Amino acid sequence: MTFTQPISTIRRDRDGAVVLDQTLLPHRTELRRLATLDEVAHAIRSMQVRGAPLIGATAAYGVAIAMTHDSGNRALEQALGTLAATRPTAVNLHWALGRMGARLLPLAPAARAEAAWLEAEAIRLQDMETCAAIGRHGLALIEEIAARRPGPVRVMTHCNAGWLATCGAGTALAPVYAAHERGIPVHVLVSETRPRNQGLLTAWELRAAGVSHSLIADNAAGILLARGEADLVITGADRVAANGDTANKVGTYLKALAAQDAGVPFYIAAPFSTLDFACPAGAAIPIEDRDADEVRCVSGLDADGRLQSLRQVPDDTPAINPAFDVTPARLIRGIVTERGIAAPGALRELFPAAEVPA
Amino acid sequence: MTFTQPISTIRRDRDGAVVLDQTLLPHRTELRRLATLDEVAHAIRSMQVRGAPLIGATAAYGVAIAMTHDSGNRALEQALGTLAATRPTAVNLHWALGRMGARLLPLAPAARAEAAWLEAEAIRLQDMETCAAIGRHGLALIEEIAARRPGPVRVMTHCNAGWLATCGAGTALAPVYAAHERGIPVHVLVSETRPRNQGLLTAWELRAAGVSHSLIADNAAGILLARGEADLVITGADRVAANGDTANKVGTYLKALAAQDAGVPFYIAAPFSTLDFACPAGAAIPIEDRDADEVRCVSGLDADGRLQSLRQVPDDTPAINPAFDVTPARLIRGIVTERGIAAPGALRELFPAAEVPA
Repeated sequence: MTFTQPISTIRRDRDGAVVLDQTLLPHRTELRRLATLDEVAHAIRSMQVRGAPLIGATAAYGVAIAMTHDSGNRALEQALGTLAATRPTAVNLHWALGRMGARLLPLAPAARAEAAWLEAEAIRLQDMETCAAIGRHGLALIEEIAARRPGPVRVMTHCNAGWLATCGAGTALAPVYAAHERGIPVHVLVSETRPRNQGLLTAWELRAAGVSHSLIADNAAGILLARGEADLVITGADRVAANGDTANKVGTYLKALAAQDAGVPFYIAAPFSTLDFACPAGAAIPIEDRDADEVRCVSGLDADGRLQSLRQVPDDTPAINPAFDVTPARLIRGIVTERGIAAPGALRELFPAAEVPA
Repeated sequence: MTFTQPISTIRRDRDGAVVLDQTLLPHRTELRRLATLDEVAHAIRSMQVRGAPLIGATAAYGVAIAMTHDSGNRALEQALGTLAATRPTAVNLHWALGRMGARLLPLAPAARAEAAWLEAEAIRLQDMETCAAIGRHGLALIEEIAARRPGPVRVMTHCNAGWLATCGAGTALAPVYAAHERGIPVHVLVSETRPRNQGLLTAWELRAAGVSHSLIADNAAGILLARGEADLVITGADRVAANGDTANKVGTYLKALAAQDAGVPFYIAAPFSTLDFACPAGAAIPIEDRDADEVRCVSGLDADGRLQSLRQVPDDTPAINPAFDVTPARLIRGIVTERGIAAPGALRELFPAAEVPA
């Protein structure tokens, strides 16, 4: 059974792309058409599209959109540069842009637009298959727990690494959906993921898929793990360094520490495009600092169902807002990839240097 | 120099008590008069008053208020029972009620009301002195760091253990205020403390006192500690077990884990009334589960300055909301009390069993 996205996170629409605007989720479902390079760059920066695999695919569509307007060398360089500068941490962005550049730079300008659309579409389709493969490999972890004891397998996750974050079934949630499809009872502990609340996206997509879940404050992860209320922690990743150190949404590291303290296995689910073998260790991963207003403000629906943003503190309250943190490889039991599960230090065994997945 | 609360968190007002309604802070400063036992119990349950030491003092005033109306044996038992049932985790509540009971039960009913007011007032004054002493002892930790290197001493805290949580200068923040008074530059990293956002209270009181601070998402504590951006973590406590395991606002344990991983010292600041020598270890501390709506909702000021509450997820989204977690003694460098700083396993050296502070 292949997972089909209820709403496409991204799809081609003539010379543009249509994306689901994730800044309005889970409150409103609105599609947005991106017709220019600047619109694509804005969509990534403002997190209308987010999730490392989806950011990569969106950047590929952005190059194709730019090539439709001007496929000269300068326009291509500018498209690659503009998109590369949108967000610093997710390496899938650079992977997708590298792939687009490698495909398009050798071509004559007149051939670039068509090739760019084909390549972007290939990246999207490949991500769907990658998600499905991660789901199959990760499923084994859930099946193993289900075989050991009765009751639902309780999976804790962080942020959103479900279908909304990809072109397919997701990364961290792909094994959950695979288990659910097979009738294995699962219950997902969904942390809110302040300040951007991507956990609410996770709750939204799990509800839509009929998967049992509970929302928790980010702060509650420690006591729930200590009490034995989770069997497994799985999160996605924005960049995995060569040694297995992993950058993911801020707060992931705290969950990994608590999982280790409780003896609960902690896994990362990530495709090849998230692995950065050029980056030796987590300390070399650039961590994005985002606008302090993300911390100062909250949003939700008022009594009349209108989406509102509220201020929690005065505008001039200083705030520090790193968007990611780094979980050291020593806290990670394994990395679930499309080729199987590797110990964090042994990723090269699944992806030998000479061989790069097409 | 003695710290004076800018607004009294609790004070006697004829036969009632006036408290600062902390559910409206930091957005509105409103006082509330509590005139009946039920109003006092509601104020504690609904967190109009919160913070372990202040909960204890408020309960004492609640007994005095009840005695004003009816000082018979049954009324006294009922007052003690009603107040004891308001919140399960903070042991100061039981300490204060135990003290009120021990003082009042032997008295003739006619003598109880006056004695109750005197005892409640004594508890309040004692808490002021206790906070000042915690400030003096904790100051040494800050001075030691200030002497080692230039720049502000960066203190991370969680929740609110400042003057708002006590009748005096606070517990965790008392050393910060003591340092600030002496001209030692300090910068406080204030975590939001979802779901009830008591970090916003901390930001509010630090701003009022002119102490430099930054607000952070709870999730950001790990990376900031890992990057070396905090010199010291100090939090308050709701109950310290005999072995030093400490219950405090949910999320404290995650900070303690991250502090240990980064080699940053983690301290608890707590008065004798928070120590529960009858409780052998953290596993025996009851942890309060609060309403799931605290996780489902957020609040703040809208563009017109009105305090609003918004829904983040549908009403029927399941949520788990433990209000506290337990930090094991092994993660705690020391406990700052009014008698000095003790290793978590050595609290009895400061407070011998035979000798209970008056």
